[in-house]
Amino acid sequence: MSTYNLILIRHGQSQWNQENRFTGWTDIDLSLQGEKEAKKAAELLKKNHCYLDIAFTSFLKRAIRTLWIILDKTDQMWIPVTKSWRLNERHYGCLTGLNKEETIKQYGEEQVQIWRRDYHTPPPALNTPNQKKDRRYKNITQIPNGESLQQTKERVLPFWIKNITPCLQEGKTVLVVAHGNSLRSLIKHIENLSDENIKTVEVPTGVPIAYTVSKRTLELINERKIFQ
Amino acid sequence: MSTYNLILIRHGQSQWNQENRFTGWTDIDLSLQGEKEAKKAAELLKKNHCYLDIAFTSFLKRAIRTLWIILDKTDQMWIPVTKSWRLNERHYGCLTGLNKEETIKQYGEEQVQIWRRDYHTPPPALNTPNQKKDRRYKNITQIPNGESLQQTKERVLPFWIKNITPCLQEGKTVLVVAHGNSLRSLIKHIENLSDENIKTVEVPTGVPIAYTVSKRTLELINERKIFQ
Repeated sequence: MSTYNLILIRHGQSQWNQENRFTGWTDIDLSLQGEKEAKKAAELLKKNHCYLDIAFTSFLKRAIRTLWIILDKTDQMWIPVTKSWRLNERHYGCLTGLNKEETIKQYGEEQVQIWRRDYHTPPPALNTPNQKKDRRYKNITQIPNGESLQQTKERVLPFWIKNITPCLQEGKTVLVVAHGNSLRSLIKHIENLSDENIKTVEVPTGVPIAYTVSKRTLELINERKIFQ
Repeated sequence: MSTYNLILIRHGQSQWNQENRFTGWTDIDLSLQGEKEAKKAAELLKKNHCYLDIAFTSFLKRAIRTLWIILDKTDQMWIPVTKSWRLNERHYGCLTGLNKEETIKQYGEEQVQIWRRDYHTPPPALNTPNQKKDRRYKNITQIPNGESLQQTKERVLPFWIKNITPCLQEGKTVLVVAHGNSLRSLIKHIENLSDENIKTVEVPTGVPIAYTVSKRTLELINERKIFQ
């Protein structure tokens, strides 16, 4: 039995994190540094005696590979894993693929900061979502073409409620390996943070964030704990 | 849409396959050769235009890693995967860990051949199953302590019926990555082979075996096809 029963991990550094580009739903793999971070995360889980019962991740390979490395290095490859597009990164619309520095040069620091951190503001939308022909998304009624953090939270939360909370209620230890903004929307919900307070929450790549959640009420028993 | 909708793959060579030892439920990893075989299997799936919808595997890492390599190399890491102890290798009881040559020297070729290939004969049973303290098996009422192929089939078949056949009926393309004998029991069932005829069926490591199964009747439309 682990002390913590909910562990959130942002995928390790991706090739586009390294190049400082907006990634969103583009399926970019881990960098070598990202693979190292995933191994480090596994070490931290072992050090903190986290025995997992189930894991959740997105449809994107930087998260899936991070999870695979963690399951491999903690000798828990047999753990059940559920993947969902609802845990995907926030969709960055027209910003997808752009270098963050160059975007600042073009639109100004203030505008880019609003796009990145304001809870309600979406990025400029794409006319057609890039993922329209990708068969992994064929069952989604409407593929996003640019999401605010609020919109991201609106599609993450049904998954949290339907798939993750029942596991916590059963007393399971749950690992969620996802993305900066899908995790920020979860953190906002779990910690009941205001639209203002979530702005300053940064989720570092490959670092386990652990909670103890009440099995009965789903309220937090322990506050956010960063493993290091 | 793939021509074949059911693909069975035995895990790549494991370290104990290489050492010619009975493995059963011991959680032995792939050898380097086994990893190469998994990559080759991925190439063969691509060459034969197999687009997967779902995959099934066992609780054992030689099968899970084979599946992971295949999903990675075919760029289908997002595919849903269900793992089950019911797809585990046949439990080899007291033979587990023994070298096959030495076992022949000790018990004679005829006896070892009966243990290996007779449909009804189990190996000598262990007093206590080795996996009793392994938490991945905590929900199994009775952990096997030595199984015949028939007994293996008896626990594989409920999984086939409950989890795999509904996917085929929905028109999905299914990949099963499992073990020599869990796959032989499936092949016996799918091809309706006699207790005698299954004896000579060998399943090579890392080689895709493809079928076309009727969505409506679950009967075979095409016979067993070995990708090479």
